[in-house]
Amino acid sequence: MCIFLFSGHNRKFWSLPSILEIEMAQPEKTISDIIAERRSTPRFGPEPVKEDDLRQILTAGIESPSGYNLQPWRFVVVRDPEQRRALRFASHNQPKIEQAPLVIVALGDTEGWREGDLDEMIRIGSEHGYAHPSKSGDTRQLIYDYLSRHENLPMWLDRQVMIALTTMMLMAEALGYDTALMEGFDEQQVREAVEAPPRMHVVCLLAVGHCEGEDKRYGGRFPAERLVFGERFGASLKLTAEIPRRGEKRSSLRLST
Amino acid sequence: MCIFLFSGHNRKFWSLPSILEIEMAQPEKTISDIIAERRSTPRFGPEPVKEDDLRQILTAGIESPSGYNLQPWRFVVVRDPEQRRALRFASHNQPKIEQAPLVIVALGDTEGWREGDLDEMIRIGSEHGYAHPSKSGDTRQLIYDYLSRHENLPMWLDRQVMIALTTMMLMAEALGYDTALMEGFDEQQVREAVEAPPRMHVVCLLAVGHCEGEDKRYGGRFPAERLVFGERFGASLKLTAEIPRRGEKRSSLRLST
Repeated sequence: MCIFLFSGHNRKFWSLPSILEIEMAQPEKTISDIIAERRSTPRFGPEPVKEDDLRQILTAGIESPSGYNLQPWRFVVVRDPEQRRALRFASHNQPKIEQAPLVIVALGDTEGWREGDLDEMIRIGSEHGYAHPSKSGDTRQLIYDYLSRHENLPMWLDRQVMIALTTMMLMAEALGYDTALMEGFDEQQVREAVEAPPRMHVVCLLAVGHCEGEDKRYGGRFPAERLVFGERFGASLKLTAEIPRRGEKRSSLRLST
Repeated sequence: MCIFLFSGHNRKFWSLPSILEIEMAQPEKTISDIIAERRSTPRFGPEPVKEDDLRQILTAGIESPSGYNLQPWRFVVVRDPEQRRALRFASHNQPKIEQAPLVIVALGDTEGWREGDLDEMIRIGSEHGYAHPSKSGDTRQLIYDYLSRHENLPMWLDRQVMIALTTMMLMAEALGYDTALMEGFDEQQVREAVEAPPRMHVVCLLAVGHCEGEDKRYGGRFPAERLVFGERFGASLKLTAEIPRRGEKRSSLRLST
């Protein structure tokens, strides 16, 4: 049995079981709603992350932008209880690492670009018509020189990996999960727990699951004037109305102006 | 004149002009759609960023999570054409920095925690009932010790600031803007252009506006098997279906399994 269903601008065929799945699935939360409601989860319950959702979360990271599209990130998805326990001990014994049904260990590969990633990125780019193959030699040299001479490659990696991991966190929140970015760990111990080679720089952990018990209270934020400037550091940003506080929506802001 | 309008679970009064505004506003793009459509914009046109949208973009950054809620980020919003030109020259003369109607310079404050941020964070937290004031001394000491002994504070800052800046990028995309994260710059020259003190670490720039001319082609991504592992580095992640490629939606994935 097939029924027409309008989805955005596209008209598609859906089989009945798919429609039931869609009706059961939550619509994606908007970023505004995530921002208004998100907490760093203090305690996770055991309910697992669905595989379809995990796929979407991973896709969000994989499709993130990176410098020269080098994608220097590597992600180890940890679900096994013993592995979660090992990660917990590598992370100052924080219980939520073991409680969360899923932890993503985000790594930056310090040597990947030298060892195949750069060539593979150029090859895949050519396949997508991104650049003419005749230019690939110049491109390769330019990027190779940039990274060879980089003053702080671990920091470069950190930036790239955090773009992908933040996007994954927001995607997980959009799908209705609770999350916690975790940066308190012993790098060497985490590397050992997931058996990553020494060249892998451990950037951050992301726990994904469902909050158990009461969520953390909102701790507040500095007033915008302390954090945001206009044109020059220290100069106030000139706007015709105030920057909204958490929980205020676009529309309520408009009403208040 | 007032009309009832149902908005989510809340019934609110709206005046007629507000309804018109709401009808004219684009709904927020979902993260899935952003991921499927986003490019790092190659060239910007002059159409400005609306102030209401800028407020939402800034709020997204301000409300992001940070270690101990220390919010070590500072953002300089650059819209003035002369300032954009100065930033362009500080960023290896990349034309899009000058073309984009708005560039956010994201900084990390290496000394903020020592110079008031830590106390202010604790004070605001107490105001929000986040922790009992009697514990604030211990909390303060714990965080002070953590940051004093941190092996690589600039890297810690980088991680925090990238969480906020990535969230801002996605918020801008959700509101229909085109963006480019830019990490090619001379740190000292950027600091001079925005008159930031030496203690401010320049992390990344975010250009926001509207793409002019043809967008960049999608350069492709490495296959998931190269980037994602299960339980241990190098071990394949066991899923019952493949990780979707760009542009494939949750529902189409379900249909294909």
